[in-house]
Amino acid sequence: MDKDIPVISLQRLPIYLNYLKSLSADKLYVTSGLIAEALGMGEVLVRKDLAYTSAVGRPRVGYVRAELITALEDFLGCKRRRSAVIAGAGALGRAVLGYGGFSNYGIEIDAAFDNDAEKVGRQIAGRPVYDISEAKTRIPALRAELAVLCVPANYAQEVADVLVACGIKAIMNFAPVLIKTPDSVTVRHIDVAANLAILSSMI
Amino acid sequence: MDKDIPVISLQRLPIYLNYLKSLSADKLYVTSGLIAEALGMGEVLVRKDLAYTSAVGRPRVGYVRAELITALEDFLGCKRRRSAVIAGAGALGRAVLGYGGFSNYGIEIDAAFDNDAEKVGRQIAGRPVYDISEAKTRIPALRAELAVLCVPANYAQEVADVLVACGIKAIMNFAPVLIKTPDSVTVRHIDVAANLAILSSMI
Repeated sequence: MDKDIPVISLQRLPIYLNYLKSLSADKLYVTSGLIAEALGMGEVLVRKDLAYTSAVGRPRVGYVRAELITALEDFLGCKRRRSAVIAGAGALGRAVLGYGGFSNYGIEIDAAFDNDAEKVGRQIAGRPVYDISEAKTRIPALRAELAVLCVPANYAQEVADVLVACGIKAIMNFAPVLIKTPDSVTVRHIDVAANLAILSSMI
Repeated sequence: MDKDIPVISLQRLPIYLNYLKSLSADKLYVTSGLIAEALGMGEVLVRKDLAYTSAVGRPRVGYVRAELITALEDFLGCKRRRSAVIAGAGALGRAVLGYGGFSNYGIEIDAAFDNDAEKVGRQIAGRPVYDISEAKTRIPALRAELAVLCVPANYAQEVADVLVACGIKAIMNFAPVLIKTPDSVTVRHIDVAANLAILSSMI
């Protein structure tokens, strides 16, 4: 992908993609103005974001919707298959496994890991739960590069270290604590409580 | 709060707060440079973000850590008690209920709503699950203004409409679909699959 896209723009691409897919099939063309209005954004912003993809808008008619969808999917790597694992098969890990929608982005969650003997050996949403000690063989075997960290805060750093040692290149961290990783590993932190606090301070 | 703070800065305030709280008790002063280095951010950015709060840094020594924590907590409304409800007591709703950490921000999740007779009347993490038809009396009685939407995508808009009609002012939407609300209602969309896709496209 174009590594120069700002993260803030990148975050909006799935929103455009979902919106475009939600339109009725007879909607062949879309303008940046239409997208901007539907999503409550500025039109210049929409046009700038879409310019990072290979899509080319035409004067007056705008974008061919199918082409724009393909451009966004290409950019987001939806056609490439990527394996992901979940660390922590508790309530949150199970919820993520059951969340669905990952395959729209070319992502398969192939396994979960836990250290609880009650959970290891079971299946959740059709995916095996392995002991965390098996990560070092399972993760390379799956060629998994993505991980979702769903362990309690006090285990987060330790488990993140294990994931990194097993070859994980990007971690989505749901634990309410910051984790440290080498520069080569990308981390995206989703602190549910902090997000609700942000929302609370906006009203 | 200062409504003029950009959302992007607001999003970083809980990160600073968590970092400051994680430092050992004998750390009385912190500089923006220290915070920036620890969190891998630019120092100017940190100083700008913190300038939205009431905290005042002093030349050379920086901020008094306890004062900066208080300033961040005040800004984020951590000392004010806010009631929140969860719509959807499935796997995700239960995971959010069990997530914890909300009280650090002054938020109490007081109830969940569902339309499944199997779930209604039970307790999850000590919180009652009510039938969604009770929302119009329960939400005003709780004076809840925050809601976390954890229902499947095809119910998201309908349930959001109910929440808004009951007086909810801000919705954190986990459903992988955009919802429409009146301008007076703030929505924060957390699409777990899209977040993983963004992360995937960054590696």
